[in-house]
Amino acid sequence: MKITPWEVEGVKEKDYEEIVKKFGISLIDDAILEEMKKYTKDIHFMLRRRIFFAHRDLDFVLKEYRKGNKFFLYTGRAPSGPIHIGHILPWIFCKWLQDKFKAELWFQFPDEEKFLFKKELSLEETQKWTYENMLDVIALGFKQKLTHFLIDTKHASLMYKEACKVAKHITFSTAKAVFGFTNENNIGSIFYTAMQAVPAFLPCILENKKMPCLIPLGLDQDPHFRVARDVIPKIGYYKPALIHCKFLSGLKAYGSKMSTSDASSTIWTTDTEEEVRKKIMKAFSGGQKTIEEHRKKGGNPDIDVSFQWLYYLFEPNDKKIEKIREDYRQGKLLTTELKEYLIEKVIAFLKKHQEKREKARKKVDKFIFKHK
Amino acid sequence: MKITPWEVEGVKEKDYEEIVKKFGISLIDDAILEEMKKYTKDIHFMLRRRIFFAHRDLDFVLKEYRKGNKFFLYTGRAPSGPIHIGHILPWIFCKWLQDKFKAELWFQFPDEEKFLFKKELSLEETQKWTYENMLDVIALGFKQKLTHFLIDTKHASLMYKEACKVAKHITFSTAKAVFGFTNENNIGSIFYTAMQAVPAFLPCILENKKMPCLIPLGLDQDPHFRVARDVIPKIGYYKPALIHCKFLSGLKAYGSKMSTSDASSTIWTTDTEEEVRKKIMKAFSGGQKTIEEHRKKGGNPDIDVSFQWLYYLFEPNDKKIEKIREDYRQGKLLTTELKEYLIEKVIAFLKKHQEKREKARKKVDKFIFKHK
Repeated sequence: MKITPWEVEGVKEKDYEEIVKKFGISLIDDAILEEMKKYTKDIHFMLRRRIFFAHRDLDFVLKEYRKGNKFFLYTGRAPSGPIHIGHILPWIFCKWLQDKFKAELWFQFPDEEKFLFKKELSLEETQKWTYENMLDVIALGFKQKLTHFLIDTKHASLMYKEACKVAKHITFSTAKAVFGFTNENNIGSIFYTAMQAVPAFLPCILENKKMPCLIPLGLDQDPHFRVARDVIPKIGYYKPALIHCKFLSGLKAYGSKMSTSDASSTIWTTDTEEEVRKKIMKAFSGGQKTIEEHRKKGGNPDIDVSFQWLYYLFEPNDKKIEKIREDYRQGKLLTTELKEYLIEKVIAFLKKHQEKREKARKKVDKFIFKHK
Repeated sequence: MKITPWEVEGVKEKDYEEIVKKFGISLIDDAILEEMKKYTKDIHFMLRRRIFFAHRDLDFVLKEYRKGNKFFLYTGRAPSGPIHIGHILPWIFCKWLQDKFKAELWFQFPDEEKFLFKKELSLEETQKWTYENMLDVIALGFKQKLTHFLIDTKHASLMYKEACKVAKHITFSTAKAVFGFTNENNIGSIFYTAMQAVPAFLPCILENKKMPCLIPLGLDQDPHFRVARDVIPKIGYYKPALIHCKFLSGLKAYGSKMSTSDASSTIWTTDTEEEVRKKIMKAFSGGQKTIEEHRKKGGNPDIDVSFQWLYYLFEPNDKKIEKIREDYRQGKLLTTELKEYLIEKVIAFLKKHQEKREKARKKVDKFIFKHK
């Protein structure tokens, strides 16, 4: 098992307990969901199912909200390739938070990050992907008036100064310990975490007001914000709160990663119906080898990637997903039937998404933050 | 003897030979001055006297100039306090180069540098000093149409992206070796050298044209550009050429440094006549203890700070300075007389400078670079 902002491998359901302890994060419990429900009325299935399962200081954010001090949301995407289903999962939840709390969302596109960490990647490429990735974010339905895109190189006149304030409090020793850097890392990659910290307090500077920040994120991004949470109070703002989601398996094996360099490991938002069908049909399953055996012994939904995709993202209805789980376990539902169900859901999602993605081209400019 | 961009101590005339070897730089020789004279007609006294004494690739810059490929100038000032006589020396030479070659000058004010390197300094302070320091630069008479101020935090949207391109080619190992960093350096200070490299090729990007860059600088800044010269060709531009000047002694001892934290070690551009007189009268001298002894044995101009100040900056007339040297050596000129001569020169310079400095307040905005 390995978790850094640049590598995630072999994380399975059974591992999360250990991760929570190791990271020193808190589990989402019923009490905090009850508190949240006071404002949201309902609870998103990703919370109910503990796909978003852990947090840092979510209780603080809700307490401030109760006092009338609204939080803002911050998430991001380091552009280096197309968007896949794994990227979209936390953003869908993030949109729900925006809708429920009418929260401003600062969406960072650090177009320098992957350029600094990947030898072969040019800035021209990451900038091309910035645009492409923005289309996906807009297509998800974020409210234009509440959503502000920050592009590191474009908004550097706003961000670099603040990043220097952060950087002054982070030694190379710390960066080394947290990110596993060596002396062979380039000095841009070493500095980068300071840029990633900025959107967690930039809105406070722009509005000259101390506001809480809530960051929905994949577990792998936690190290960046462990450092940021340490430093940001030193420059006068609240520690950003985090809410962590689990990893959605890649198609090739339970617990495997979705890789931008391996098209068959995931589904892109731009995939055709045919590609979706082909990829999911090849996905790793918890079913038996023959239909007879499956009918007799039943399948294992716990390691079945198609089931996990439905559970995490594509079947929000609790009754339906539990029936699928039981039917699969008992052998009533065959692997191909489960896959057909997922394929239908994914295709329906992508059809709408791709339409909205095309329409988004006209909106990009309005989403990019303009400093007065 | 110690030379880094952040510390210079105990450098004397006899040391320069060793430094040239150690740094691997070339001495300015008569041949290169003859070549330069073709374009400048006369030769600045700082070149004749080898105050600007060494270079890297100045011959290349002149060769390109001959071919019609004009160079641009780049120099800078990291603001953290007022401007003193030591700062002004290379800028006076830089202005001469601008006038003679009608060269564009890019003047960098890295307002984050000293903030990152000095624990107690705030960005508000360095930004206040940025403005104050700009007044001095403008007062020196640089041509407004040929001069562009770059302020790192303000122009970061232009610079950060380019700095990342540089940073990608510099490992922490390299930065450690060149600048003497340790693991306890903050990640902003480690990244900073990439920002300092940017103005050496930014004009080429803005004009989409490969142009040579010439940087007049104090020897202590050489390490920054040793790294920059290594990297810049990798991203498609010429190695910047350098022309190095020697260190002007602080007032307290021959070979001592002028320190921003020690007002008696130097003269600020804002000093009053009284302060100038007081400081120079206390300056270290090469004279004898009594007038009788001085008349008999003569003084030593080689270690006399007042003489050095005249030689380096305030007495451009060769005949006059040689007469002073001889008279002092023979005991004809007393220490107080030598000092009075310098005081008069410094006061005359400052009187004009301070007037121009006040008028500069109205011009600051015009000097700050505006990207179309």
